Amino acid sequence: MARIALDAMGGDFAPHAPLSGALLALREFEGDHSIQLVGQTQIVSEALETLLAGDFSDIAERARAAIELVEAPDVVAMSDKPAAALRGKPNSSMMVGLRRHAEGLADAFVSAGNTGAQMAASTVILRLHDGLRRPAIGTLFPSALDPVLILDSGANVDCSPDEYVQFARLGTVYAEDILGRKNPSIGLLSIGEEAEKGNIAVKEANKLLAATAGINFQGNVEGRDIPAGASDRGPIDIVVCDGFVGNVLLKFYEAAAPLIVGLVGRHAGLEREQLEQAFGHLDYSEYGGAPLLGVKGVSIISHGKSSPRALKNAIRVGIRAVETRMSEHIGRRLAPSTAPAAAMGESA
Amino acid sequence: MARIALDAMGGDFAPHAPLSGALLALREFEGDHSIQLVGQTQIVSEALETLLAGDFSDIAERARAAIELVEAPDVVAMSDKPAAALRGKPNSSMMVGLRRHAEGLADAFVSAGNTGAQMAASTVILRLHDGLRRPAIGTLFPSALDPVLILDSGANVDCSPDEYVQFARLGTVYAEDILGRKNPSIGLLSIGEEAEKGNIAVKEANKLLAATAGINFQGNVEGRDIPAGASDRGPIDIVVCDGFVGNVLLKFYEAAAPLIVGLVGRHAGLEREQLEQAFGHLDYSEYGGAPLLGVKGVSIISHGKSSPRALKNAIRVGIRAVETRMSEHIGRRLAPSTAPAAAMGESA
Repeated sequence: MARIALDAMGGDFAPHAPLSGALLALREFEGDHSIQLVGQTQIVSEALETLLAGDFSDIAERARAAIELVEAPDVVAMSDKPAAALRGKPNSSMMVGLRRHAEGLADAFVSAGNTGAQMAASTVILRLHDGLRRPAIGTLFPSALDPVLILDSGANVDCSPDEYVQFARLGTVYAEDILGRKNPSIGLLSIGEEAEKGNIAVKEANKLLAATAGINFQGNVEGRDIPAGASDRGPIDIVVCDGFVGNVLLKFYEAAAPLIVGLVGRHAGLEREQLEQAFGHLDYSEYGGAPLLGVKGVSIISHGKSSPRALKNAIRVGIRAVETRMSEHIGRRLAPSTAPAAAMGESA
Repeated sequence: MARIALDAMGGDFAPHAPLSGALLALREFEGDHSIQLVGQTQIVSEALETLLAGDFSDIAERARAAIELVEAPDVVAMSDKPAAALRGKPNSSMMVGLRRHAEGLADAFVSAGNTGAQMAASTVILRLHDGLRRPAIGTLFPSALDPVLILDSGANVDCSPDEYVQFARLGTVYAEDILGRKNPSIGLLSIGEEAEKGNIAVKEANKLLAATAGINFQGNVEGRDIPAGASDRGPIDIVVCDGFVGNVLLKFYEAAAPLIVGLVGRHAGLEREQLEQAFGHLDYSEYGGAPLLGVKGVSIISHGKSSPRALKNAIRVGIRAVETRMSEHIGRRLAPSTAPAAAMGESA
């Protein structure tokens, strides 16, 4: 059972997409979950009634019991600067929702709103586990095998070598708790398999990662190993890189995949709908949302263009993070007192 | 008319692929070009005779007149360390071919062999234009519009801000001379369009590029703009980035494109051959070869897995670089005495 605070005003298609996502979640997911819709109550209430009288009339009664409306008068725009959103809009749906989580009134916060503002607000309100300077974002890349978790995907741009080790620890817990991978394998993104290949930070990070107990480090991987889902040494669950490279790759894949699918599909005379059905798994947004890793709590970041289905999936990620106690596990994994043996036990 | 020294021993499919590529070039390209096949003459001669008695019997006479065999007893292995290849194999096909070019006996050198060794040998034998610390590699990425030239694609890993400016200058000449683009537009790869987004080196490079006369700098671009071939500000001809990011992206695209084409194609029931015919332009190796930019001369780098067709296209790139006097243009563009007006005249 998880209590999800959902940003009803966040994303390009709010409030329709978050509300529909919430109702899809209540219809589909097992467990006695509840959802707090945080936003301008009047707008949210009207939109909710329309949906309950329409597409979701089948679950209207259950939805009314499981949904609570929480007033938040301010709205963070997608274009607001993070610092300005924090200072200037203290009662935004983002700030109110995160505060409810921090105060124990909700177990997780989910938003498709302004990512920079969500990162900043989550860091300030939920705070970071000890040993971290900034939170990190892990994103799932579709591959020929299982999706590969890439982190950092944009939160940490100029990284010191020890930050790669933190990414490896954060990614290990994510892969275990959210993806259900056992002893997840980690690759360090570089320009050659050999440990001595890479830029200055990556070469140093390779040494630190190789000397870190309690993670399954497999050495360097290359760009080609991500779509393959594996290097010559076997399947890869996690690829660590700095947030500059991760963000460039993420936006590149996000644009290249639909371009190529569309090209081949048109050539073969397939309809757009057929393509989406068959290749939705190449659309990373279908994974729904990425937990902001390193904060004390659960803050799920969704793409601004998230569909109702993507937001439903983001809520699923939130529920799973709550149920697996992901944040607690991260805190333990990062704690300096973590002995290798204890860390190994964690993943067993 | 260009005299091409071709590494007959370089690449995974040597000598067959280089020899077939040379014969395809002689059959297809207009102009009185000649090709020097550099390698172990006995092996090369036997392979050549087999081809001339078989698939290329139609041009046997012309080929014999246009082809010269040049003995080079040593062979650089794909796995040789560059420095070891230089010191330990002074009479490799790579060293002999490049020396012929340096001595004026050939106008260009083309190889699908060990890229690191080719870069090192080209730098030592041909030397660099003034103002450069290392050569750079530009690679063409297929896009929804024209192919986008990405540089550096792997030669320069830790880049200072002024190196991005050199990449922009080198890329401008490449795009004008080899691709025939007029006043080619340049984007700086970053994680946001705004000039203040990026890592430390990129933020500084943005300022330097904006202050550089004689190039058509359009500001930052993001990963998504590469497959699109354009940013919000219009089409993009050239994207400059450090060689770490460029190499990761190159290898990523190289693996992702065929994966997605294959997935969609299988779904649609297309045969592999149909797919290759229709989407060969998504395979960057079809552009054949990338000139090593910044050396005094023409050294064309081809992928180790180059097919005969890719090598034919690499020879075409070499011919075009000779005919347009690309290296001279680069020298003039890089010279400190280049006044903005002169540089502008260059591209007009």
